Amino acid sequence: MSTAPSSPPIFGRIGVIGVGLIGSSLVRAAMETGAAQSVSLWDQDPSTLARAAELGLGEPAASLAEAVSQADAVFLCMPVGALATTGALCAGSMKDGAILTDVGSVKASVAKDLRTLSRPGLHVIPGHPIAGTEKSGPDAGFASLFRGRWCILTPEPDGDKDYLSAVEALTRFWERLGSRVELMDAARHDLVLAITSHVPHLIAYNICSTAADLEAVTQGEVVKFSAAGFRDFTRIAASDPTMWRDVFLNNREAVLEILGRFNEDLTALQRAIRWGEGDLLFDVFTRARGVRQSIIEAGQDTAAPNFGRDAPAEPKP
Amino acid sequence: MSTAPSSPPIFGRIGVIGVGLIGSSLVRAAMETGAAQSVSLWDQDPSTLARAAELGLGEPAASLAEAVSQADAVFLCMPVGALATTGALCAGSMKDGAILTDVGSVKASVAKDLRTLSRPGLHVIPGHPIAGTEKSGPDAGFASLFRGRWCILTPEPDGDKDYLSAVEALTRFWERLGSRVELMDAARHDLVLAITSHVPHLIAYNICSTAADLEAVTQGEVVKFSAAGFRDFTRIAASDPTMWRDVFLNNREAVLEILGRFNEDLTALQRAIRWGEGDLLFDVFTRARGVRQSIIEAGQDTAAPNFGRDAPAEPKP
Repeated sequence: MSTAPSSPPIFGRIGVIGVGLIGSSLVRAAMETGAAQSVSLWDQDPSTLARAAELGLGEPAASLAEAVSQADAVFLCMPVGALATTGALCAGSMKDGAILTDVGSVKASVAKDLRTLSRPGLHVIPGHPIAGTEKSGPDAGFASLFRGRWCILTPEPDGDKDYLSAVEALTRFWERLGSRVELMDAARHDLVLAITSHVPHLIAYNICSTAADLEAVTQGEVVKFSAAGFRDFTRIAASDPTMWRDVFLNNREAVLEILGRFNEDLTALQRAIRWGEGDLLFDVFTRARGVRQSIIEAGQDTAAPNFGRDAPAEPKP
Repeated sequence: MSTAPSSPPIFGRIGVIGVGLIGSSLVRAAMETGAAQSVSLWDQDPSTLARAAELGLGEPAASLAEAVSQADAVFLCMPVGALATTGALCAGSMKDGAILTDVGSVKASVAKDLRTLSRPGLHVIPGHPIAGTEKSGPDAGFASLFRGRWCILTPEPDGDKDYLSAVEALTRFWERLGSRVELMDAARHDLVLAITSHVPHLIAYNICSTAADLEAVTQGEVVKFSAAGFRDFTRIAASDPTMWRDVFLNNREAVLEILGRFNEDLTALQRAIRWGEGDLLFDVFTRARGVRQSIIEAGQDTAAPNFGRDAPAEPKP
């Protein structure tokens, strides 16, 4: 839904805590769409905060308390492992009627931690915009990151009328940024994301690690012939290690459950290869192929071959 | 290396047997670069052959024998499992001094099978252009597919002077198409490709299969939230099932060896998640991240975030 920049802002002021890829994209998108009138910034790393200010992303605050005290909504944009502590530091300085939300990739543990901060007049609404790239830092962000992507909110099930209004405002905010919003139970979010995101990332990290360890094949050869398929995995494995460590530590049960299924299925394929069971391989491959078509039809990826990326003009020796 | 189309052709006539993605791209590239003067086509599927002719890709032959009888070089462009039989059918009709080569993703078993067809005046040179997309069929091919990509040849180690000249001609042919050529031992090729291509494809197929099976999460949700990482795997898993079945059946030893290592490493990560060993996860993820940078520096992939693909304008419900 395209919105004229002249539409009234959803929030007067927002506080964005953490100005990496997601935080800096959120600021850019909020300013470009007019979803917020003004933005206060904070980052625990002074050089990151200075860089964000240099990029003109908003008003850097002198302290975390200053960044959140006037905000109608505070967005915690940091690795999941830092959310509970930072959220607690924010809550005491936030004004009445404000929203405390986050962008973390895990929701059940976050919801549990943040809910303890809830008080009359402080609306805790965990959130997760399903958007990103493999890059990190304030320079990597861009305003269109959330456009056409889903954003999941996992609000408390028993919120009062004020809380529901706050959820509605946050929903309109993400919609203004170009996202489609889905309300979901936190545990279900974590299971769905374990299969669509967490386990795929773990596997990508793992195959890069296996490849790097191979003594029988030099790393030079792995890199040289990576375009045969391997390079696709390395893109995902280029994502921020701290963020992903925290995801796995905080979504342990769902990740181990999906990983168990993945391992069973892989063992069956491995056995089929050992015993030369071509029909089994063919059937599994054929069914897997169908998933791709569904994703393209749902508008979740490009139909262009090789994601539309160009071959480099010349390989380097 | 760009070559003027007016450079003399490497081969007078080539025979391309199998006009799917790779075969039809080879024909297009050979015609565009003038690497061959004329092209005879054959495909075991009459409708595929007719479609290739309709696309103006070359001269469709009335029989396999006719397609190869006047060719200076015959390219077998089909799943690995069909190479031995088709190669044998070609060899008897080929003229003296001609080259018999292929584009299969496995080389040791292919070299062993095709070598039995070798005779004075018939030069068997197994080959593998490391290029492709997830699409199939003659409409999916394009002339620039091999540009900037590696092509591996696995010639016989004990070839005579005529054989070496044939290897040199085939090398120049692939270079004209824009590839850089590497000569390699067939067994080493199969080990390197097991890690850079075969095991990554198996894992991609497997995770798509695991996802499709999940009863606790609907397939609709997996598709809907696939942009979180999963969609990358589905591209690879959209590749031709017959081709890949044959790859695994014909490169069994190397694939099982690499798969064993992958499983050990994944088990270690799984254990680290269960026991909350964040430092181990962080270290593995950090090292894996480095592989990506090497690949971009080697010109094997784009540095653009998300492979440079655009977010869709609007998600579909």
